[in-house]
Amino acid sequence: MASYKSSLRITLPITCVIFETILIILFAMLVEYDQETDANLWHQKLRNHSETNYNNDFYYRYPSFQDVHVMIFIGFGFLMTFLQRYGFSSVAFNFLIAAFSLQWATLMQGFLHGMQHGKIHVGVESMINADFCTGSVLISFGAVLGKTSPVQLLVMAMFEVTLFAVNEFLLLSILGAKDAGGSMTIHTFGAYFGLVVARVLYRPQLEKSKHKNSSVYHSDLFAMIGTIFLWMFWPSFNSAVTAHGDDQHRTVMNTYYSLAACTLSTFAMSSLVNRGGKLDMVHIQNAAIAGGVAVGTAGEMMLTPFGSMVVGFLAGIISTLGYKFLSPVLEKKLRIQDTCGVHNLHGMPGILGAVVGAVTACLATSDVYGEGMEDVFPEIYNGKFLASTQATRQAIGLAVTLGMALFGGIIVGFIMKLPIYSSPPDTICFEDSIYWEMPGEEGSQEELATVMAEEVQKPLNS
Amino acid sequence: MASYKSSLRITLPITCVIFETILIILFAMLVEYDQETDANLWHQKLRNHSETNYNNDFYYRYPSFQDVHVMIFIGFGFLMTFLQRYGFSSVAFNFLIAAFSLQWATLMQGFLHGMQHGKIHVGVESMINADFCTGSVLISFGAVLGKTSPVQLLVMAMFEVTLFAVNEFLLLSILGAKDAGGSMTIHTFGAYFGLVVARVLYRPQLEKSKHKNSSVYHSDLFAMIGTIFLWMFWPSFNSAVTAHGDDQHRTVMNTYYSLAACTLSTFAMSSLVNRGGKLDMVHIQNAAIAGGVAVGTAGEMMLTPFGSMVVGFLAGIISTLGYKFLSPVLEKKLRIQDTCGVHNLHGMPGILGAVVGAVTACLATSDVYGEGMEDVFPEIYNGKFLASTQATRQAIGLAVTLGMALFGGIIVGFIMKLPIYSSPPDTICFEDSIYWEMPGEEGSQEELATVMAEEVQKPLNS
Amino acid sequence: MASYKSSLRITLPITCVIFETILIILFAMLVEYDQETDANLWHQKLRNHSETNYNNDFYYRYPSFQDVHVMIFIGFGFLMTFLQRYGFSSVAFNFLIAAFSLQWATLMQGFLHGMQHGKIHVGVESMINADFCTGSVLISFGAVLGKTSPVQLLVMAMFEVTLFAVNEFLLLSILGAKDAGGSMTIHTFGAYFGLVVARVLYRPQLEKSKHKNSSVYHSDLFAMIGTIFLWMFWPSFNSAVTAHGDDQHRTVMNTYYSLAACTLSTFAMSSLVNRGGKLDMVHIQNAAIAGGVAVGTAGEMMLTPFGSMVVGFLAGIISTLGYKFLSPVLEKKLRIQDTCGVHNLHGMPGILGAVVGAVTACLATSDVYGEGMEDVFPEIYNGKFLASTQATRQAIGLAVTLGMALFGGIIVGFIMKLPIYSSPPDTICFEDSIYWEMPGEEGSQEELATVMAEEVQKPLNS
Repeated sequence: MASYKSSLRITLPITCVIFETILIILFAMLVEYDQETDANLWHQKLRNHSETNYNNDFYYRYPSFQDVHVMIFIGFGFLMTFLQRYGFSSVAFNFLIAAFSLQWATLMQGFLHGMQHGKIHVGVESMINADFCTGSVLISFGAVLGKTSPVQLLVMAMFEVTLFAVNEFLLLSILGAKDAGGSMTIHTFGAYFGLVVARVLYRPQLEKSKHKNSSVYHSDLFAMIGTIFLWMFWPSFNSAVTAHGDDQHRTVMNTYYSLAACTLSTFAMSSLVNRGGKLDMVHIQNAAIAGGVAVGTAGEMMLTPFGSMVVGFLAGIISTLGYKFLSPVLEKKLRIQDTCGVHNLHGMPGILGAVVGAVTACLATSDVYGEGMEDVFPEIYNGKFLASTQATRQAIGLAVTLGMALFGGIIVGFIMKLPIYSSPPDTICFEDSIYWEMPGEEGSQEELATVMAEEVQKPLNS
Repeated sequence: MASYKSSLRITLPITCVIFETILIILFAMLVEYDQETDANLWHQKLRNHSETNYNNDFYYRYPSFQDVHVMIFIGFGFLMTFLQRYGFSSVAFNFLIAAFSLQWATLMQGFLHGMQHGKIHVGVESMINADFCTGSVLISFGAVLGKTSPVQLLVMAMFEVTLFAVNEFLLLSILGAKDAGGSMTIHTFGAYFGLVVARVLYRPQLEKSKHKNSSVYHSDLFAMIGTIFLWMFWPSFNSAVTAHGDDQHRTVMNTYYSLAACTLSTFAMSSLVNRGGKLDMVHIQNAAIAGGVAVGTAGEMMLTPFGSMVVGFLAGIISTLGYKFLSPVLEKKLRIQDTCGVHNLHGMPGILGAVVGAVTACLATSDVYGEGMEDVFPEIYNGKFLASTQATRQAIGLAVTLGMALFGGIIVGFIMKLPIYSSPPDTICFEDSIYWEMPGEEGSQEELATVMAEEVQKPLNS
Repeated sequence: MASYKSSLRITLPITCVIFETILIILFAMLVEYDQETDANLWHQKLRNHSETNYNNDFYYRYPSFQDVHVMIFIGFGFLMTFLQRYGFSSVAFNFLIAAFSLQWATLMQGFLHGMQHGKIHVGVESMINADFCTGSVLISFGAVLGKTSPVQLLVMAMFEVTLFAVNEFLLLSILGAKDAGGSMTIHTFGAYFGLVVARVLYRPQLEKSKHKNSSVYHSDLFAMIGTIFLWMFWPSFNSAVTAHGDDQHRTVMNTYYSLAACTLSTFAMSSLVNRGGKLDMVHIQNAAIAGGVAVGTAGEMMLTPFGSMVVGFLAGIISTLGYKFLSPVLEKKLRIQDTCGVHNLHGMPGILGAVVGAVTACLATSDVYGEGMEDVFPEIYNGKFLASTQATRQAIGLAVTLGMALFGGIIVGFIMKLPIYSSPPDTICFEDSIYWEMPGEEGSQEELATVMAEEVQKPLNS
């Protein structure tokens, strides 16, 4: 234990300082305000195009950005506090790797699809995209939660962000696939990447920490804070980078209905699969939000409210069944120890979302979309793709994403396995006390013990 | 107990699946995107009226919607977690019945005031209205909290949403009353409906669960999350569907001042009515937000900041006194077991809000409102009503609401009393463990017991 | 104890009622809706200037306001719940004094820079400014947390708001300094004011309550809710009153990058300064948000993303070192008992922010700002100031702020020391039970004791 602590004392500060220093240097060299953020450029635009301040993209997108930000930091962070003794690490490591990832993502996404005249231009849209990429890293974090040191997580984040940006570039820029809410780029990629990493980091002796790998009453309530914020703000997530006007509006509405239907099917399945008919908090915390994942691709399309509800309903069923029946199989047969069940919340619903996206694209007609086709399917509008071509591109996008996740996860998993990151021993996984100065519970327990002792003495003495 | 569980296993999944299936079928038949959400229609509007995307109602209303959404799911959900052993059920049943209600409300409100060419057109405003209707159901949930099964609650929600929509239609469309923040339609209706249901479901033996019908330290802190989010976002609630421009702006401001004044009077009264001068968390959690309820009708009117503060100040006093002196009487004399005290938070402040609305309407003059009269009181602006007529209509609206709530509550209460919903026995009300797989506290208590035992043995052995 | 309670019963209601009554009277005499909130005036403006509703300032600022509101009530409120037995008081007294301060601030700020024709005109911007002033009071509250009665706090708030408004007027209106996010006016002022008050109220016997002046596991998680909301919404805080368009957009972005960099340096330093390399929750809860404070002045300037990251990185280092090494010195040598460490979170980072602001102002050129200079530095744009003059004014602003805080803090500290406010004795500081009806933990402890007793008897009997 002693050596463990002292090595963290060296590795964590060094990693944080080196990473941040590199970020600062690269930002100094490469990053500039975009036209809507730069004082000089925006005022030139105001004058030359007789624009008004209201057309600054800030007003279209900042409320959505803030909701996405809440999902990343409160949503993911608190969702993972369900473990009885890993709340500090869950919310704080989530905080740390998210703060790193959003900076690194700005650079990686900028390299691949934001360079102008050798500079990366940043504004509210790049902030949203960086948060999206961060979300993907946090999904993978869920798979390895409790079994990895913060240094390992930072290393994982560095590589995963890079691969995310490459995959996103392949899908959106090369293939011409659509994926505004990231069923493929964020959820499928993050989940399968994380699962493969978890497979590589398989711990045969994890049973030794089993009693810590569960919740207590109040930790489950803290987790519900995360769940509910994710559920509420998912409409903002899926619509944050869709086109202005009807597109944002429609995406919000589709996501809202999908989530509502998903909640009902989750409660139904949770009670049904349990011998005694009791509900399981794990299902409510996770499966009830799978409806947001499942309309990540098709949400901006003319999916209709009814179609969204069907998709959400299916997502809740698949996800709950996954928690009940598939997760134990994954662990026993495939040796994938998926702490948060990201396969059920992000993996399968992500694939469902990709398929729904391909099918909905295939059904696109100019009767339904009118002039709005230009925003949703520019390639179809321009006559470059048929609807069936778009659908094929969507399906290829899913395959590429799965390939990138599996391939990347194996490599990054082995990098993370190097014995230099102060990874915790099997006996003290899911345990805050190895990373944190723990607050003085001893005191309060002692106090309680005193009270108890007095209570206990009474019957003995009488 | 065994038979109880197994019946829930049958009834809950069946109810959820049937309800959601009906919703999906009706949505497929009846619901369409509105002009601002449909790709084709919006782009036609853009072209034909040389509109810009900024005039899409999404940008006027979505931030307000998100705040309302937070109030419904976090606000109401966590406010009810104050019970020591009902936190899972409070936040999760709130989640379930809200997810159902918002879908059903979309249909019911659509039937009554949203049909065009045989279709219900949905957009951000219908989403807000559906959330509002859901709020009313959640208020009633507060009255019966801890004593009803989730199946009972879903059945209550189905009927209450329907009656809500009818009452709302009578007030707003037939009577021409104004009630943007729902002092009458949401709060008065929801509270009295719930109280009557609680009366019908009166449990003479509820004493047996009395030790569970109270809070513990951390459950009260969880409840404060709900309180504070309700308090903060109430300005968005009251202004969410008022007219664009000065109306939304003014409603926000009036609500903000009313709530601030209410907070001070609540602290004053809470300390005053207690023998030792100590404050009571129940008052702070509830009465301090009554100021939002009390300006639900008049908030959009020219109530003035000063007027809003007076109303809020009164609301805090009435509500705190209600908790202290009226609730025990209601239980003993009228046999109304009002778990959350919705009579004090929503009932009396709702009536106060209705009265303030009528009085403020009566004082409306064209000097004060100018051209803005058209948005606030279209019937007065059009010369159809005198200000006094408007006031009368407001007062009739209150009477109709009370009548609908009482009448509806009795019928629905008796429907909920049918012995087919796995309602919990008197001895295990306010108890999560009958609905939920409970996390392994036994483990941790055992662990603690071991520690304790060791501590205790020390003095014994020495 | 008995006399303590009964005196609170008298003083708290009286203070609340008198304060609120004065507020209501002054509002009745002096406060009016502004042109964007008043029905008549706004509709005149719509007609006369052919404005559209979208140009109502509400749509530019309300989402920012709501985020600021969340910071004030959830952020500050829950950040202070870290104490094991002061959660009720932390979140509820925060609520009380914030609700009072925002009303009083509306008047004080109105007197000094909002009077038109003898009336104070209120709208969304005055609401934001009132919340800002409230933030300053809550910072001071952090310094005296656990050691002051609610009556003392209300008296402090009354005086501090007044002095805040005077200081703000001196800086912004007389000196022409810029401070949109309040590094000086809010953070430096609030922190040093609070520290001086804490010095005057120094309790030599506070050791007697030492065992209560610490956190427990779940209280630290509650505090993280506050931390994360402050961190997420700080971009909205700093940009809430900057000019429309690029200014709001740029301020958001600078703050976002500063906070991200600050988080990494905080984790690095927290691990580094600890002998065992463990992280300390106090640092994560507080120092990780110092990056927002440190760009409060320069955030609206052309600081560049890279510059923001450097500032945030430094803020995290300074703040963490302060918690580790400076706070104990302050307490021992200077007799300043700073409960929440506001010197580290708001004091030093606030001064850093003021210095960064002065330096950045000094570097302003018309090449960089173009026409945008008018919004950021109107005095430079108008040729009234050179950039170096602006920088000097900024520096003088810092000196004035420190002077006002020290001078005001001494006087108000002595006023607060008068023995008429039911201040808690040294032995029961940091303890909710003197102000609050405590929930029935005895019951549950007794229950636990019974379980324990049974467990304990087993080995004894066998």
